[in-house]
Amino acid sequence: MIKKTNKHSLIIIGAGPAGLAASIYASRYRIDNLIIGEVVGGLTFEAHKICNFPTEEEISGIELTEKMKNNAKSLGAVLRMDKVIGINKKNKLFEVVTQSGEEFYTEAILLATGTERRKLNIPRENELLGKGIHYCATCDAMFYKDKIVAVVGGGDSANTASFYLAKVAKKVYQIYRKDKLRGEGLWIDQVINNKKIEVIYNREVIGLEGKEKLKKIILNFSYKGTKKIDIDGLFIEIGTVPVKGLIEKLSVNTDNYGYIKVNTDQTTSEKGIWAAGDITTNSNNFHQIITACSEGAIAAENIFNFLSRS
Amino acid sequence: MIKKTNKHSLIIIGAGPAGLAASIYASRYRIDNLIIGEVVGGLTFEAHKICNFPTEEEISGIELTEKMKNNAKSLGAVLRMDKVIGINKKNKLFEVVTQSGEEFYTEAILLATGTERRKLNIPRENELLGKGIHYCATCDAMFYKDKIVAVVGGGDSANTASFYLAKVAKKVYQIYRKDKLRGEGLWIDQVINNKKIEVIYNREVIGLEGKEKLKKIILNFSYKGTKKIDIDGLFIEIGTVPVKGLIEKLSVNTDNYGYIKVNTDQTTSEKGIWAAGDITTNSNNFHQIITACSEGAIAAENIFNFLSRS
Repeated sequence: MIKKTNKHSLIIIGAGPAGLAASIYASRYRIDNLIIGEVVGGLTFEAHKICNFPTEEEISGIELTEKMKNNAKSLGAVLRMDKVIGINKKNKLFEVVTQSGEEFYTEAILLATGTERRKLNIPRENELLGKGIHYCATCDAMFYKDKIVAVVGGGDSANTASFYLAKVAKKVYQIYRKDKLRGEGLWIDQVINNKKIEVIYNREVIGLEGKEKLKKIILNFSYKGTKKIDIDGLFIEIGTVPVKGLIEKLSVNTDNYGYIKVNTDQTTSEKGIWAAGDITTNSNNFHQIITACSEGAIAAENIFNFLSRS
Repeated sequence: MIKKTNKHSLIIIGAGPAGLAASIYASRYRIDNLIIGEVVGGLTFEAHKICNFPTEEEISGIELTEKMKNNAKSLGAVLRMDKVIGINKKNKLFEVVTQSGEEFYTEAILLATGTERRKLNIPRENELLGKGIHYCATCDAMFYKDKIVAVVGGGDSANTASFYLAKVAKKVYQIYRKDKLRGEGLWIDQVINNKKIEVIYNREVIGLEGKEKLKKIILNFSYKGTKKIDIDGLFIEIGTVPVKGLIEKLSVNTDNYGYIKVNTDQTTSEKGIWAAGDITTNSNNFHQIITACSEGAIAAENIFNFLSRS
């Protein structure tokens, strides 16, 4: 039996910028929509400082997320903090099953499950998680007041992490495998000109030492005469990978990296399933908050046309 | 002789959301960029009330425009209010010529020239412009306090125009050629439930009467026994068409309607020229502020890669 309250026209899986923007557009088309997500804002929630969202000079991920969430809710979206573990086709409806044991039914699904932090995949990385190993400077920098930390990576997220950590820590090493930082020039300037930050180029972190807690990192080539550096914390900021799990259980086509292949209207290879945001191959693979919002809007418009016809 | 101040790495033509977002991204990549446009905000500037920009519950076009303009300027963009009348290739640079007689030189061009209001193309439409004929309710509604006006169209812009005019005018006729309004359900509700608004379906405006000023409109089929309706003002809100002029002088490929064909990275058929926003065929032809901003960001990232290589 499908309870009326468990049936929606659209279920949006993921509560990041793509999912929230899609919900806002969907609600304005009066599509009854439910958002199911684990973290409101997704990875945006973790961003310390966002300077390239066009209408905001400078805003934290939490604040930006809050604005979108409030708009979505004020337009009538139902927001559920839960994890979708399965989707089954039942006649003309999809059955959406969550970790907490609930079942929902819907005519259309938007996958906006985003990406998660890429790991170094070196020994003891998982074991020392939270014991010196971190993937989110905004979340965990405060543990390192006046301590020594290292950041791995050379793109925007690594650069912003170093910049942010330097406000708290005594010393920040930034270790990058290439000879030049990449990404926004303005962030690169912030790193290069910060006396607390020492960039170690052309090196990779290949090992971790410490009994209960991380104490040292091991580089592949020596630096200033040694391959080992004493640190209190290591922040791994080497990009993102698609959130798998649910996606792997579905039959939607993905590229070799696991990103969902979408058409220009955000439809996937599966009828009734759309995808938007960082999880897709659209927006020229440029994963930004503004591009995710745009994909969410495009998907919602296309879902509106689909539901109007069905 | 190219004066140093007249040479830029990137010239953005058009100061609407696509152009401003591109400038913000470009400046953060430290690309020296000049924006040349006629109206800051483009068509967004005219929007009375925007309710679907994801981070704003409700905002006027002027306010939204102002936020983006301020961010662009604070990051160092130079903004010039002028009209580009020609682009010529000179060796490896483009020469950009403006109406005011200035010449600028650049390595890369972003066309973000947007769209303009579609006309009814009926006799006397041009002659009576400003004498009862209008294309922007936000701009001109105030002339019609306690008067009788008509709106032509049935999509979001017509619906919002009727809603807005009903706050000022005594009576609003909304004339639509089909039997059902389209666009966002929430705007349709606002129209249908407003006692001042009378929607006339399945009719088109085919003629205009009045000596010095518009007095009557003529419908193709009679309504309540007559084909003529007495009105003080007519607001034409039947969508948009690409701004031609400059585009027609260039060799960039367009579709049959005049929209610039772009690749997923916003490049056009002409090397060194990108396009973003309402003027392009991207974003599934869904012309929204959020999609225009996204295209601007994608273009800027691609231009950054291009300039880094060259």
